[in-house]
Amino acid sequence: MAVIDINADLGEGFGIWTLGDDVALLDVITSANVACGFHAGDPLTIRRVCAEAVRRGVRIGAQVSYRDLAGFGRREMDVAPEELTAEVLYQIAALDGIARAEGGRISYVKPHGALYNRVARDPVQARAVTDAVRAYDASLPVLTLPGSSVYEVAEGLTVVAECFADRAYTPAGALVSRREPGAVIHDRDTVVRRAVRMAVDGVVEAVDGTEVALRARSICVHGDTPGAVELARSVRKALTEAGVRAEPFA
Amino acid sequence: MAVIDINADLGEGFGIWTLGDDVALLDVITSANVACGFHAGDPLTIRRVCAEAVRRGVRIGAQVSYRDLAGFGRREMDVAPEELTAEVLYQIAALDGIARAEGGRISYVKPHGALYNRVARDPVQARAVTDAVRAYDASLPVLTLPGSSVYEVAEGLTVVAECFADRAYTPAGALVSRREPGAVIHDRDTVVRRAVRMAVDGVVEAVDGTEVALRARSICVHGDTPGAVELARSVRKALTEAGVRAEPFA
Amino acid sequence: MAVIDINADLGEGFGIWTLGDDVALLDVITSANVACGFHAGDPLTIRRVCAEAVRRGVRIGAQVSYRDLAGFGRREMDVAPEELTAEVLYQIAALDGIARAEGGRISYVKPHGALYNRVARDPVQARAVTDAVRAYDASLPVLTLPGSSVYEVAEGLTVVAECFADRAYTPAGALVSRREPGAVIHDRDTVVRRAVRMAVDGVVEAVDGTEVALRARSICVHGDTPGAVELARSVRKALTEAGVRAEPFA
Amino acid sequence: MAVIDINADLGEGFGIWTLGDDVALLDVITSANVACGFHAGDPLTIRRVCAEAVRRGVRIGAQVSYRDLAGFGRREMDVAPEELTAEVLYQIAALDGIARAEGGRISYVKPHGALYNRVARDPVQARAVTDAVRAYDASLPVLTLPGSSVYEVAEGLTVVAECFADRAYTPAGALVSRREPGAVIHDRDTVVRRAVRMAVDGVVEAVDGTEVALRARSICVHGDTPGAVELARSVRKALTEAGVRAEPFA
Repeated sequence: MAVIDINADLGEGFGIWTLGDDVALLDVITSANVACGFHAGDPLTIRRVCAEAVRRGVRIGAQVSYRDLAGFGRREMDVAPEELTAEVLYQIAALDGIARAEGGRISYVKPHGALYNRVARDPVQARAVTDAVRAYDASLPVLTLPGSSVYEVAEGLTVVAECFADRAYTPAGALVSRREPGAVIHDRDTVVRRAVRMAVDGVVEAVDGTEVALRARSICVHGDTPGAVELARSVRKALTEAGVRAEPFA
Repeated sequence: MAVIDINADLGEGFGIWTLGDDVALLDVITSANVACGFHAGDPLTIRRVCAEAVRRGVRIGAQVSYRDLAGFGRREMDVAPEELTAEVLYQIAALDGIARAEGGRISYVKPHGALYNRVARDPVQARAVTDAVRAYDASLPVLTLPGSSVYEVAEGLTVVAECFADRAYTPAGALVSRREPGAVIHDRDTVVRRAVRMAVDGVVEAVDGTEVALRARSICVHGDTPGAVELARSVRKALTEAGVRAEPFA
Repeated sequence: MAVIDINADLGEGFGIWTLGDDVALLDVITSANVACGFHAGDPLTIRRVCAEAVRRGVRIGAQVSYRDLAGFGRREMDVAPEELTAEVLYQIAALDGIARAEGGRISYVKPHGALYNRVARDPVQARAVTDAVRAYDASLPVLTLPGSSVYEVAEGLTVVAECFADRAYTPAGALVSRREPGAVIHDRDTVVRRAVRMAVDGVVEAVDGTEVALRARSICVHGDTPGAVELARSVRKALTEAGVRAEPFA
Repeated sequence: MAVIDINADLGEGFGIWTLGDDVALLDVITSANVACGFHAGDPLTIRRVCAEAVRRGVRIGAQVSYRDLAGFGRREMDVAPEELTAEVLYQIAALDGIARAEGGRISYVKPHGALYNRVARDPVQARAVTDAVRAYDASLPVLTLPGSSVYEVAEGLTVVAECFADRAYTPAGALVSRREPGAVIHDRDTVVRRAVRMAVDGVVEAVDGTEVALRARSICVHGDTPGAVELARSVRKALTEAGVRAEPFA
């Protein structure tokens, strides 16, 4: 029987501002990438999300980011490695402490936004991030793209690949940049079909029509697009109907 | 033999900006109140201070604050209790995680600046802070003023009183506000004499000349005044000569 | 013929986060209180709102605030007067420059949130704010509550009173704190009726049922409550039907 | 008679943190690049620097930056052009308004740190910055490196080149990155000699010993290195002795 984890970004409000419907998503996913305060996520929002996740047995992951509230962590930054390691360590620790106060703990680390993309191709920043994981708790898996630079620098760590049902892929298996048209797939049926193929067959259709093999243990659904929750529910339902069991990877 | 702890604020730089000479102070004090990023303290600065403190056996305390970099946490804020609890919890967790990555851990919590003053007289914010300590680790003592509101709301927690050799006291045993003239004592000999009396006799001379009894287990020396390190050294030397042993309270 | 200005808070998103429907509101109001970046309002959001306001002939006001993105400027802060003056001056200047780049200019200043409430009763912070207005351009009116402390310290400035159709009033004519139940009135018909009475008769019914006289030249409608735009449209329609002309005060 | 402008970065403290001795530098320089709040420069610090600059007739320039207090604007960021334009416009306007409140006005714009380096080679960000200048006041010159991309995109604007007496140059006339050893020259005599040659002969010796021609109308002295003020004084004195007149370029 095929098994897959479903992860989504949560806790991405800040103060008065909200983003997505965290509580509804928690009923669909198995792993919650919770913002840690650097691109989003004030402490009270984080705490509430952690409490809800613990209540449902949803795994909590540290969604670590560049320090960039104004840009939502989507702007690449040339942060010196030692500084980046300290910043990531700070975020992991803050979230884990809050999760523990709610009776849980973090189960993995997933870089966010521009940092996610950067570490997929830059071994220097990838090492800076994995150094933080190693320093905090080397048993925490890192969630990244297949083929990411994180694999090269993760000695002693577990690296887990994920895939995106609602993102376009290049023939090389990389994500199409959000700045390009068609980067995010909005059609529900297409997203659902892609999700099932990813989970059952381990492949995705790239922008040029070719099939790319993915070896992803988790599938990421986005929570900040319109109709996100319904889409995530459809994905989960279709996976169940296709005989795939949704289960945390961590 | 009299015993006292000597604490000081450390890690209070931010990015390019520095404040005080952390490394020098670490050779004098027994407890380091390390900034947690909300009034000061970028992650790399925090990490370096923690590493140096662990190396020397100096205890690390979480110097938690209002979120106010521009005001260095010295401006009182009407933060809702639930929010304040989450913010303090976040800071404690972040610092403890970094301390653990350096082979240590935090040993106590000390509110900073305006929050320190506020919790000394406002049971609502005091409870918000102690709720955070309770949620994270109820074995962590809270460092505060004698007579502080923290005592009223700290059931299940250890509260430790501290005194300030370089701050003026009211006859009621409260600190004179920094906005008033004479709030900070700059004369080295006076500070040193006050420190010894505090440690040996448990008293301080208030602004009206009366003697106020203190029951302080720790003495705070400031690190951001000119000549701070020399002053701290003089205090420690004088304490030793007066037969007082400097020893962490936690 | 009765004349009233209709003002609302705009530009209160930040980066990825949005709040309210600025463009729709601009078709209803005559004065836009535009966030200046301290409680909300990133520069691009501000610029777009200014462009739309200029296009429609809607007046632009500087909605100045404490520096508090995490608390949306709703937490009172003890900022020293000289510092507050500089912070308010900075915000006024930033917004005015952007408005000018879009072919407009700011026409008034309105403190936001906790600062709004604070200056209504604290002459020290009120003076700090009016000092900034005086330093920048003494011809800019300040929008405040009737009876506000701003009146006491505004020598040389124009002060304009406003009223709130969707906020509860004390018998003394003050706003009921948002922390108390019933502070915000959600029933559309009630809000509309109150707005018309305010504009036509210059009175509002306080929480104890008594009538309070208001001498308000502007009426504030909120944009961040559900159905805000529809409510504002209803208010404007009812005012027109009652023979009141909506016209900027500045 | 040779003429040169001497510029330095000022107002680069933030809240409690200070950097450099602004008042002393103001007696030496002819143009002050004043931080605008995004990499440094709280409003009160900015206001005080502007007041002192106006008093001495020193020109004020807007030292615009990426939004990055934690990194002091020294980390390159991939900010979208429209957003960068709005951010730069905001900063220019804020500073100019404060300068005007002090009886002056800004006379030029100079990007700071990583933005300075980026616009020197990236026409997209260079255009984003010049778009802001154009939108605010097209008569404001932009201070940049000789050969910078700013020249390519500055139609309708005045571009002024500057040189650095205390920075190493590549044979191509570019600055050596601060991350490389030897990027900043600390030896006073060397800096002074280079300054004089720059002003009198218009050349600098590159790291490989070759001479590079500079066509710089302004010379930049740094204020955040130890002994900065003495160094700047020495430069100015040597320039005077070499018959060079220090005079604002704007």
